[in-house]
Amino acid sequence: MSETDLVVVGVDVGGTNIEVGSVDERHHVLQRAKAATPEGGPENVIRVITELVGSLDAHPIAVGVGIPGVVHEGRALTVPNLTGWTENVDLIGPLSGQLGVPVTLGNDANVGLLGEWIAGAARGGRNVLGLWMGTGIGGGLILDGRPYVGSRGAAGEIGHVIVLAGGALCTCGRRGCAEAYAGRRSMRGVATSMVDAGWKTSLFTIRDDEGKTKLTSKVWAEALDDEDQLAEKLFDTAIETLGIAIGSTNNLLDLDRVVIGGGLAEKLGQDLADRLFSAAKPWMLQHNPDLKFVVSELGDDAGVVGAAALARAAVITS
Amino acid sequence: MSETDLVVVGVDVGGTNIEVGSVDERHHVLQRAKAATPEGGPENVIRVITELVGSLDAHPIAVGVGIPGVVHEGRALTVPNLTGWTENVDLIGPLSGQLGVPVTLGNDANVGLLGEWIAGAARGGRNVLGLWMGTGIGGGLILDGRPYVGSRGAAGEIGHVIVLAGGALCTCGRRGCAEAYAGRRSMRGVATSMVDAGWKTSLFTIRDDEGKTKLTSKVWAEALDDEDQLAEKLFDTAIETLGIAIGSTNNLLDLDRVVIGGGLAEKLGQDLADRLFSAAKPWMLQHNPDLKFVVSELGDDAGVVGAAALARAAVITS
Repeated sequence: MSETDLVVVGVDVGGTNIEVGSVDERHHVLQRAKAATPEGGPENVIRVITELVGSLDAHPIAVGVGIPGVVHEGRALTVPNLTGWTENVDLIGPLSGQLGVPVTLGNDANVGLLGEWIAGAARGGRNVLGLWMGTGIGGGLILDGRPYVGSRGAAGEIGHVIVLAGGALCTCGRRGCAEAYAGRRSMRGVATSMVDAGWKTSLFTIRDDEGKTKLTSKVWAEALDDEDQLAEKLFDTAIETLGIAIGSTNNLLDLDRVVIGGGLAEKLGQDLADRLFSAAKPWMLQHNPDLKFVVSELGDDAGVVGAAALARAAVITS
Repeated sequence: MSETDLVVVGVDVGGTNIEVGSVDERHHVLQRAKAATPEGGPENVIRVITELVGSLDAHPIAVGVGIPGVVHEGRALTVPNLTGWTENVDLIGPLSGQLGVPVTLGNDANVGLLGEWIAGAARGGRNVLGLWMGTGIGGGLILDGRPYVGSRGAAGEIGHVIVLAGGALCTCGRRGCAEAYAGRRSMRGVATSMVDAGWKTSLFTIRDDEGKTKLTSKVWAEALDDEDQLAEKLFDTAIETLGIAIGSTNNLLDLDRVVIGGGLAEKLGQDLADRLFSAAKPWMLQHNPDLKFVVSELGDDAGVVGAAALARAAVITS
């Protein structure tokens, strides 16, 4: 077998874009491609994935796919952030039919942590929490040196650890989840109402200048860099709240590594990890003296590298 | 080898009593002995354990010990509920010297769940939370079909999952832990202040009639049976709070079993487990349809059976 025979392709299906990459045995991304995530349900997503994989030079031996939903026994049980998806969708059957190679499916947050664990900031960690700050707050776990996904693939939901029962209404419908304070979607809602109430902020001006429709991590990073007071107030609250959720998680799981990912982690770097550690410490009953908080090393590639690693592991163990 | 050669002894060191039992290969307790937990530090505890083990008919091939503290690499790192203990105590060296057999050490809550998992209500569970309602709230975890103790043996602290950040002051010094609302020590404090403020309750009368000094689980069970309003109010709050902590834990770990133990579980039975499930459900993002809430089957024996299982496993794998 020549070396190119051992290339796998990782696919990261996000709410906005689908990114694919061919990945070699050393977990290096050889080539990338991306397209907007189509609306209208799984068939359209399958079509775009097939086109993107076909656009790469490599002929992969397998394809791994991370999706923003709960994956159990190869099926997408729920995919709340994509429009037009029903429950319990079979992606593997149609995709492997189209692509002609084995396809493996995982949850995007779990797959992202797998990427960091195999080739990034979680390397060497035995009990790791991955926390992705984005539109929502995603999470993944490595426990006792193995990826942990729980009974039905739904583990790792650090965004829905309750920090203040009965507190802020979360987009999940419960009151007091970490995500209700720290997810960008929720933060934008609060920012909007504070502006309505007369607060000044550069957040929406920066958004317009950047030609964005949402308060992206880039918009937040610029506003924080400008020392925008409203942005700082919301961000401080997000850090404080995530610190509580991480503290609770550490009391349950006695971690040795926390990896912070998402756009803000890329833009703010280790300072973000340090701030979260400071916010979490007061809530920890005790902590492993070797506990480290670090930011993602792979950035946007984590999902692609992790999905590829998932596919590679499935080929090896099958 | 005759059958008696394969007996191990389990030791459950509690804040009040030390219980020991000889346990056969089918995890049945053959004989029990107990004594009050001595004050004054580890030397006295080692002496009482040695006496108790010596009082049993069996000549065990190994001894397992569960203690109310953090155990890492065979040492007791912290033992907060026993007086006279320093940090980082070696129990195994002196105990195995005294007893002449291998000694294995574990945390009491983890060991209790191990007992339930090997021979009780957690049998067959793959991702299990054990929650012990007592003076404090203890916890243990089985994850991916293996006991999980975390990086330094400190995992499972469901009592110190934050349910209401900044809320009630917990005996650990933090504000808003589940234990601050649901641990008997904290509940007694609130009951006392409510009585001072004019509330009527039979809790303290029952306590005196029973000749107890503390509000034991028996006292609580009787007051609840009498439909004592103050007891019901405090108990409802405890259930509600534990429901939130279990909900958060399920969102992180996607469990398939929750086992409730401690004196109240023995006295209230499955009704307690059902009430906790109802309280937890609203906080679960989703739950495994096979998720079950059950009460301990081994009761007081869980610690002894689990400690014996720990010792047996160590002998087999050494």
